[in-house]
Amino acid sequence: MTRQPTVLDVAEIAGVSRQTVSNVLNSPHIVRPDTRERVEEAIKQLGYRPHASARRLRTRKSSTIGIRLDPVTNGISGSVLDRFLHALTEQADAFGLRVLLFTARDPDDEIAQFERLLDGADVDGFVLTSTTYEDPRTEWLLEHDAPFVTFGRPWGAADVYDPRHRWVDVDGHHGVAEATRGMLELGVSHVAYLGWPPPSGTGDERRLGWRDTMLAAPGLGLREPDLDALEIACEDGVEQGSTAVRALLARGVRVDAVVCASDSLALGALMVLGTSVPIVGYDNTPVAAAVKLSSVEQPLEQAAGAALELFRAVGPRGDSFDPDGSANDPDHRLLRPRVFWR
Amino acid sequence: MTRQPTVLDVAEIAGVSRQTVSNVLNSPHIVRPDTRERVEEAIKQLGYRPHASARRLRTRKSSTIGIRLDPVTNGISGSVLDRFLHALTEQADAFGLRVLLFTARDPDDEIAQFERLLDGADVDGFVLTSTTYEDPRTEWLLEHDAPFVTFGRPWGAADVYDPRHRWVDVDGHHGVAEATRGMLELGVSHVAYLGWPPPSGTGDERRLGWRDTMLAAPGLGLREPDLDALEIACEDGVEQGSTAVRALLARGVRVDAVVCASDSLALGALMVLGTSVPIVGYDNTPVAAAVKLSSVEQPLEQAAGAALELFRAVGPRGDSFDPDGSANDPDHRLLRPRVFWR
Repeated sequence: MTRQPTVLDVAEIAGVSRQTVSNVLNSPHIVRPDTRERVEEAIKQLGYRPHASARRLRTRKSSTIGIRLDPVTNGISGSVLDRFLHALTEQADAFGLRVLLFTARDPDDEIAQFERLLDGADVDGFVLTSTTYEDPRTEWLLEHDAPFVTFGRPWGAADVYDPRHRWVDVDGHHGVAEATRGMLELGVSHVAYLGWPPPSGTGDERRLGWRDTMLAAPGLGLREPDLDALEIACEDGVEQGSTAVRALLARGVRVDAVVCASDSLALGALMVLGTSVPIVGYDNTPVAAAVKLSSVEQPLEQAAGAALELFRAVGPRGDSFDPDGSANDPDHRLLRPRVFWR
Repeated sequence: MTRQPTVLDVAEIAGVSRQTVSNVLNSPHIVRPDTRERVEEAIKQLGYRPHASARRLRTRKSSTIGIRLDPVTNGISGSVLDRFLHALTEQADAFGLRVLLFTARDPDDEIAQFERLLDGADVDGFVLTSTTYEDPRTEWLLEHDAPFVTFGRPWGAADVYDPRHRWVDVDGHHGVAEATRGMLELGVSHVAYLGWPPPSGTGDERRLGWRDTMLAAPGLGLREPDLDALEIACEDGVEQGSTAVRALLARGVRVDAVVCASDSLALGALMVLGTSVPIVGYDNTPVAAAVKLSSVEQPLEQAAGAALELFRAVGPRGDSFDPDGSANDPDHRLLRPRVFWR
């Protein structure tokens, strides 16, 4: 690479001191207009650009967000977080932010990485995905006053709307309720639910979306015990889904339709029930599209944009924050998914 | 966040000048041993860590690799590059390197990003994925003497083993040949090939893996025209795969088995042929596992490690380079995939 012009080159061409060039870059108002013009002309002539590390050192800001790359799972829904990361990286530029990746074996390791990246001023803060009950990571970040935004609510927190913990999330209750209503509109009554074992922040909420809708449906006449018989939980996975559906059928339960907590489970159900029984999955993964499964789609582009907006607004409340209609309050965004019917 | 200790705090505690602290950090051999000890003691006491940006400014090295996050595709094989990125990020730490993400709309936009990131010293260089014929990106990087390694060979280059273009790749010819041999060992003769239209670096090579194996198979007696009838090409996709297989069958061709250029195509073939005809896909994606398709698996962890090794070795040949047995030459690594039979 040819040598980049330095601040000294600029100073020489402009016939000023290094300090003057530095002043033009950092405090132009203290420099005489004619001198400033000469320096600016030299900067332009040389194509000089202030070194990014120098700029960051000066501002003590890296304009960089750290994001942990989740471990690759064998599930087919892992693609959702990858899509969120894509959307976030794509939009970061417009916010003047960059994305630095790291990996971690477990939450403790992730916390060690937080510390290292903050200490080195490598990042200004973090966007976290996959929040859990009593998440030790957000506790650590709050204790250390480190800027962060989570994609996911602080499950189990005393105050989910704590202004110190900014988050963006997708309303899974709403998505599954809409899927369940869509099934009931087909004229069927026994809509089964295939979900995950509690406790699971996202899982419990999706399950309630189905349950509340079934209980509220006019004329269905299903009561709590009927619903208990219509639902089954298993770990996420295609085979697990198939096994669970077989177990549900073995109970002698009538199954008119199935709403699932994930596309993996939905694919498992599809492999047992075939296309005779309508099935809705969750996350609208490429696999759902490939096998023509209806599925709940999360608005990931919108979620990424909201996360960046909240991240930029972290710290003392500034003027930069511009809440839009979808906000519940300035620090939290609960977005609505929609069912992609096929 | 509590204020980080600075070099001035260290200087004060140690009773030396700021320059002396700087000397201890950067040129310890020029500092008197007793002074050095005092400064080191103060650094330890304060928990002072040199600011990463300052370190980078000093060394003019960011120890950061820029990687473009590929656009999200609807295909199911996009996960391969995500898995490569995961493996690379996981292993980068051990090489003292970090991963900065960016996105780009097209090759021109990607080149503009290269320029911006290099100008700002945000990255030392790049790891590129998805190389194409006459790739304008690698041409630009070579012209500008910017360090890079590609995951993928320089398709169509006059010299694929040009030492200035370091690459790691997976031998698709070998993978498809092994898949084809596995099919022939089942005792069948009419192994069809479902691939992509030329020109495609990876596609053409995979196709030849099938073709060369079929021609060389003892006792098969298939000639060029027989092979022409047994192969069909289409764009990647599940539906495209189904349509192509139907077209192949409509020709009246006998199909005993199918080898495919991707899992998407294989899933498309599976949806037409069912499990009666053995099918092998490529990339061993989660979907292949879910529907129990055999598939060629790329050694992505090994590819990521090799890419990092080559990246670190970019520039004047140093002592740090330690070629292992899998190398073809010090600058290029062609790794072998294996068939994951199900």
